[in-house]
Amino acid sequence: MSDPTELTALAAAKEIASGRLTSEKLTQALLERIDSRDDAVRAWAHLDPDQVLAEARMRDSERPRSPLHGVPVGVKDILDTHDMPTTHGSPIYPNNHPSNDAACVALLRDAGMVVMGKTVTTEFALRNPGPTRNPHDPTRTPGGSSSGSAAGVGDCQIPLGIGTQTSGSIIRPASFCGVVGYKPTHGRIMRNGMKVLAESLDTIGCMARSVADANAFASVMEASPIQSLSDVGPAPAFAFTRSPCWAEAEAGTRNAMKEAIARVQGAGGTVVEIELPPAFKDALEAQDVIMTYEAWRGLAYERCFHADKMSVALKDAISSGGDHTRQRYDWARNVQATCKATFWQVFQRFGAVLTPAAPGEAPKNLAFTGSPNFNRLWTVLGVPCVSVPGLKGPAGMPVGVQCVGAAGRAHETLAHAAWLERVLAE
Amino acid sequence: MSDPTELTALAAAKEIASGRLTSEKLTQALLERIDSRDDAVRAWAHLDPDQVLAEARMRDSERPRSPLHGVPVGVKDILDTHDMPTTHGSPIYPNNHPSNDAACVALLRDAGMVVMGKTVTTEFALRNPGPTRNPHDPTRTPGGSSSGSAAGVGDCQIPLGIGTQTSGSIIRPASFCGVVGYKPTHGRIMRNGMKVLAESLDTIGCMARSVADANAFASVMEASPIQSLSDVGPAPAFAFTRSPCWAEAEAGTRNAMKEAIARVQGAGGTVVEIELPPAFKDALEAQDVIMTYEAWRGLAYERCFHADKMSVALKDAISSGGDHTRQRYDWARNVQATCKATFWQVFQRFGAVLTPAAPGEAPKNLAFTGSPNFNRLWTVLGVPCVSVPGLKGPAGMPVGVQCVGAAGRAHETLAHAAWLERVLAE
Repeated sequence: MSDPTELTALAAAKEIASGRLTSEKLTQALLERIDSRDDAVRAWAHLDPDQVLAEARMRDSERPRSPLHGVPVGVKDILDTHDMPTTHGSPIYPNNHPSNDAACVALLRDAGMVVMGKTVTTEFALRNPGPTRNPHDPTRTPGGSSSGSAAGVGDCQIPLGIGTQTSGSIIRPASFCGVVGYKPTHGRIMRNGMKVLAESLDTIGCMARSVADANAFASVMEASPIQSLSDVGPAPAFAFTRSPCWAEAEAGTRNAMKEAIARVQGAGGTVVEIELPPAFKDALEAQDVIMTYEAWRGLAYERCFHADKMSVALKDAISSGGDHTRQRYDWARNVQATCKATFWQVFQRFGAVLTPAAPGEAPKNLAFTGSPNFNRLWTVLGVPCVSVPGLKGPAGMPVGVQCVGAAGRAHETLAHAAWLERVLAE
Repeated sequence: MSDPTELTALAAAKEIASGRLTSEKLTQALLERIDSRDDAVRAWAHLDPDQVLAEARMRDSERPRSPLHGVPVGVKDILDTHDMPTTHGSPIYPNNHPSNDAACVALLRDAGMVVMGKTVTTEFALRNPGPTRNPHDPTRTPGGSSSGSAAGVGDCQIPLGIGTQTSGSIIRPASFCGVVGYKPTHGRIMRNGMKVLAESLDTIGCMARSVADANAFASVMEASPIQSLSDVGPAPAFAFTRSPCWAEAEAGTRNAMKEAIARVQGAGGTVVEIELPPAFKDALEAQDVIMTYEAWRGLAYERCFHADKMSVALKDAISSGGDHTRQRYDWARNVQATCKATFWQVFQRFGAVLTPAAPGEAPKNLAFTGSPNFNRLWTVLGVPCVSVPGLKGPAGMPVGVQCVGAAGRAHETLAHAAWLERVLAE
């Protein structure tokens, strides 16, 4: 058998169910990988090998509870775990031991999966980075805020990781680390037990090694049956949009989009370039107003009573929220509602929209997790997004292609992303 | 001066600011009231008199930080407090000591208010009652789930209490206990640090002794400036709807609505009976689907790992959520979105809609917190609601009149409710 650290989650679970692999052996192999790579990558906020191995052995003693039984997963450190600390990437919470698991963590445990440990998050899932580095080049950022989950999956330290996105915190790090990033429709994975940043935007999703893995894992966290991805047929219909931020796209991203479109067309698919509806012109500003308005209020405890332990970067990122009036916030929420109602029209003719996942390759800067501008529009819309890996930029670093779908039609989005994944891998 | 326990919150704060009263003396008076009444009412899940008095003395040493400086408040026991346990009304959490305050709790402390203690909630803010009794008749329910906050305010043990509503958990107990209940527009008070039941419905609000108090306190929790309620003029325009549940209205509620309409008209206002738009026919079913779908998933940790400590009533209340498919949930969310878009039309001509707050007087049953059916429609719409006290039923128990407004226009709703409050008090 090949190196178990390189298996997809579904393949690993199949090996475990067949008896050719055990959860303990898989976990042991992953722990060895982490041991050899942790100095360089630093993906983990908390990891207790003995605890994980004990949990894996327990899973080996059970009958499989799901198609992901026995598979270890990294949990972003803004999600509560009843048996591990949850620091939110903040010095305000060094000894925070929640009484409960977040709902999504409980659901993956109920599916027989193993919590490997807590993965590094930026401070409260905003801009201030943790210690994690890009596994493909330690002088580059892994992206954020789901830094540890993206780097851990990208470095074969873990087959799956939980991420969350408020601006671009799943799709961007996935693109930078060369993994599949999946942000489901807003509100489909419940956020109970998550440290909320901005309620109207925060979305739980995942980092994975394949689109099929992301589909299966998200279904577990959604407490919905795992459905195989459907066949999109020989000629799937894609749209392409440069998005309002195209001027920020670097050569790596411009070339990747060009290459992706050519590969789709070469494989029999169609790609039609579209303009976004006029209502979208205010959407990026609305996303910023909603995020800062909600985060400034939502982090009231930290801001009012522990401001000395908040980074300057965090304070700067939310300070405008204190100036926004209720009327300004209502304006932004109305823009959000209008764009949600309008975007549906785009999907009359297409199965998914192709658009950049990030401005380019991961920046050579460990103090900056990169711009989320190619993600913010889709986050405020609450629509499903997948970052599909396979292409590389001028420096040889990964560059993802983002596949966007319609709210409530995530299955179709994932099916198109899986088709694209095969086409980009050829 | 009159008995300080009977002052409104704004009046008490004014006395404190003027030096005629102190936060400590007010707190002491409230503690004495609680001491004499707690055996009968049982509103408190946690109360430490020494701790509260120390906090009040600290407030007395400060310059006023807001128009509610020094006022004690009861905090529903599903909201995190860094210095008090938070049990969620559940035996799963007897020793739960959060590291943080919920955002709304931090904001009220930042405004110089005093956390009196934690008020009794039903189990996870659903149906299974706590020990609290109606302050006007200990053989009757106080309503739920915000039982302790409603009973505490209704019994002059506290001038203000925090409540939350997913079905009818603010407006119904307010009606039963004879206090003002205020559910703001969904999403305006951030829910960080709250035990979530159903994300798309849960709304933080308050119990108060006057509409003006509710307006001021909600503004503090919303981190928005406190604006005085505007004058609605000599002839405010109300609508009246029987709502889809009129058949459940008992004599107490039928008479109260008749009396309220007569008083409004007698005072110069207009009342026009309206039918709800046809799209609303599915709204009650949608509310139930959304609540059970989200709660069954959101309470995954408790359900999967501590089912033995969940009441049968709780399990029954959420079990249908496990059967609902993603498609059924999407249907319900679409109904919600359509009704939200449609309800706006009702407000072209009216300042507020009058409708029952509850089926009637508080039931003579401590095992049942009463039907939320007159509340569920407005919760799924996310619109602001106020229960206005002043009228009584055949047994002499309070019966509230519900004043409903349009999303994002809570100020207008409150202004109409304040006018109604004066008219009902005459």
